Amino acid sequence: MASAEFWYEFASTYSYPAALRVAALADKRGVSLAWRPFLLGPIFMAQGWRDSPFNIYPAKGRYMWRDLERTCAAIGVPFKRPEPFPQPSLLAARVALALQGDERSDFSRRVYAAEFGEGLPIGERATLGALLIACGVDPAAALERAESDANKALLKAECARAAEIGIIGAPCLVTEDGEVFWGNDRLEQGLAWAARARVGNGR
Amino acid sequence: MASAEFWYEFASTYSYPAALRVAALADKRGVSLAWRPFLLGPIFMAQGWRDSPFNIYPAKGRYMWRDLERTCAAIGVPFKRPEPFPQPSLLAARVALALQGDERSDFSRRVYAAEFGEGLPIGERATLGALLIACGVDPAAALERAESDANKALLKAECARAAEIGIIGAPCLVTEDGEVFWGNDRLEQGLAWAARARVGNGR
Repeated sequence: MASAEFWYEFASTYSYPAALRVAALADKRGVSLAWRPFLLGPIFMAQGWRDSPFNIYPAKGRYMWRDLERTCAAIGVPFKRPEPFPQPSLLAARVALALQGDERSDFSRRVYAAEFGEGLPIGERATLGALLIACGVDPAAALERAESDANKALLKAECARAAEIGIIGAPCLVTEDGEVFWGNDRLEQGLAWAARARVGNGR
Repeated sequence: MASAEFWYEFASTYSYPAALRVAALADKRGVSLAWRPFLLGPIFMAQGWRDSPFNIYPAKGRYMWRDLERTCAAIGVPFKRPEPFPQPSLLAARVALALQGDERSDFSRRVYAAEFGEGLPIGERATLGALLIACGVDPAAALERAESDANKALLKAECARAAEIGIIGAPCLVTEDGEVFWGNDRLEQGLAWAARARVGNGR
């Protein structure tokens, strides 16, 4: 089966519609997805940015919020701008990474829906705990695993891997042959590539 | 008839596939297009950028060149990276603005094809002159009009208008109701919006 990696950052605006769309699109193409949460912070820092580029460049931010609003309306999902933006995403990323398989993707979609659909504070343990319960996961145990030294180190390694691959924003689809497709608007193209790459390899 | 404005900058990479695609897409939607050449320089300067962001942020540049290569392959148009990048686009913008109607769109497509399809230096009068001849336009007369004080002032006004609309990159589609759609990957969405906006107004 063809596969692709879905790299996402919980503070990233366009990762919201992408996270809600990507599983169905991948199923349709017969592509299995690995959900890979990471942090854009270190990548932005390497560019000299100490804040979201959407805050550093207000004109870009204004465009993005309006574009995101249109994008959400077009796919029929609610949109509420979180305050402040960006939301602190470290704990959510650690929790997602400490979960496996469907629990990780289910939790991740719920985080995005809470953050950008309801405007809830995803940096707070109470918010994440409630989302874990909704996923059928014991919140205390998940948070403990999330904050273990091993899991913290794993997230750091994932961030380093993202930079190494050439990821410069989120979301990104990365195919087996190493192509990076950046943006909610590249999901279809990236998944088509992933499906073709597999066929091309004759595997 | 519904209408939309197509704002483009000759040095802009994603404006190349967009310029080659947009007329057929607009025809299909029944949207009439106004081609509006402008310069991103003043807009980038206002952000504090004295070069293309693709040069200022090399990781972003690497991603863009590969993405552009894939985009061109997908629509079956040649791609050759111009050196240096960005190409000086002032004279080409002035010439395009000095032309009207089909001559402007024809010339503009030829400039992009020369620049990003063949890697030709579009800052040179000889290149632009040859493209004008291919359009059936007298190059000496067109260049003289292009460099008139009135045309130079008109281009400045167009750049100011672009900033006022909220344009932050190129290409952009701007609809009658003032929505801005940025990117080659937003052409379909922008034209659909333009067609709907017209229907919605009952005009």
